[in-house]
Amino acid sequence: MSLLEKIKFNEAGLVPAIAQDAATGRVLMMAWMNEEALEQTLATGFAHYYSRSRSKQWKKGESSGHVQKVIDMFLDCDGDTLLLIIEQTGPACHTNRKSCFYKQRQDGEWITIEEPII
Amino acid sequence: MSLLEKIKFNEAGLVPAIAQDAATGRVLMMAWMNEEALEQTLATGFAHYYSRSRSKQWKKGESSGHVQKVIDMFLDCDGDTLLLIIEQTGPACHTNRKSCFYKQRQDGEWITIEEPII
Repeated sequence: MSLLEKIKFNEAGLVPAIAQDAATGRVLMMAWMNEEALEQTLATGFAHYYSRSRSKQWKKGESSGHVQKVIDMFLDCDGDTLLLIIEQTGPACHTNRKSCFYKQRQDGEWITIEEPII
Repeated sequence: MSLLEKIKFNEAGLVPAIAQDAATGRVLMMAWMNEEALEQTLATGFAHYYSRSRSKQWKKGESSGHVQKVIDMFLDCDGDTLLLIIEQTGPACHTNRKSCFYKQRQDGEWITIEEPII
């Protein structure tokens, strides 16, 4: 598939994918895709990633229901990073926060600025 | 430094850092930092990255002048990805486009949707 041919997967066969909320513009998470995860994302319209800890691809939200509908997709200049504009159902983070980026630098520390929403 | 201790650098000693435009919310680029690059970022207030091709850390914009002033910084749930909210001087992309994510998926192809601004 032409879309995949332009992507430079790394030595492990993975490419980082940033998920950004279509409604708010907030960056929600960064995860990895292998070819299969990307193919499934393109085929279904819902984000699939590759779990490095479990060594398998998975549909985001397949157990939690917190799926990501892909609205738009971009590839960067080097062809080695993807940006997904998504509609997020529920929290994106496995800690049940809206975004995984909930620890803010404040006075030399990481401070949790957001509580779980469910 | 406490901020660095919480970060899980990968096996190559690097952590991915996403740069998001403070004014527009647009995701501009994703690059890598080693400890030194992060320390320089924290010390100077301007984004520094690590070039994997040149095997050295560098200040973003040191030759082009297209620097990134860091307004805010977030760490994700797993401690292995950074999000920088930045004020970008000039284009973020080395192709002189505002963002590196200028290739949009359209009908099974990546289409360049943005021209260089300088």
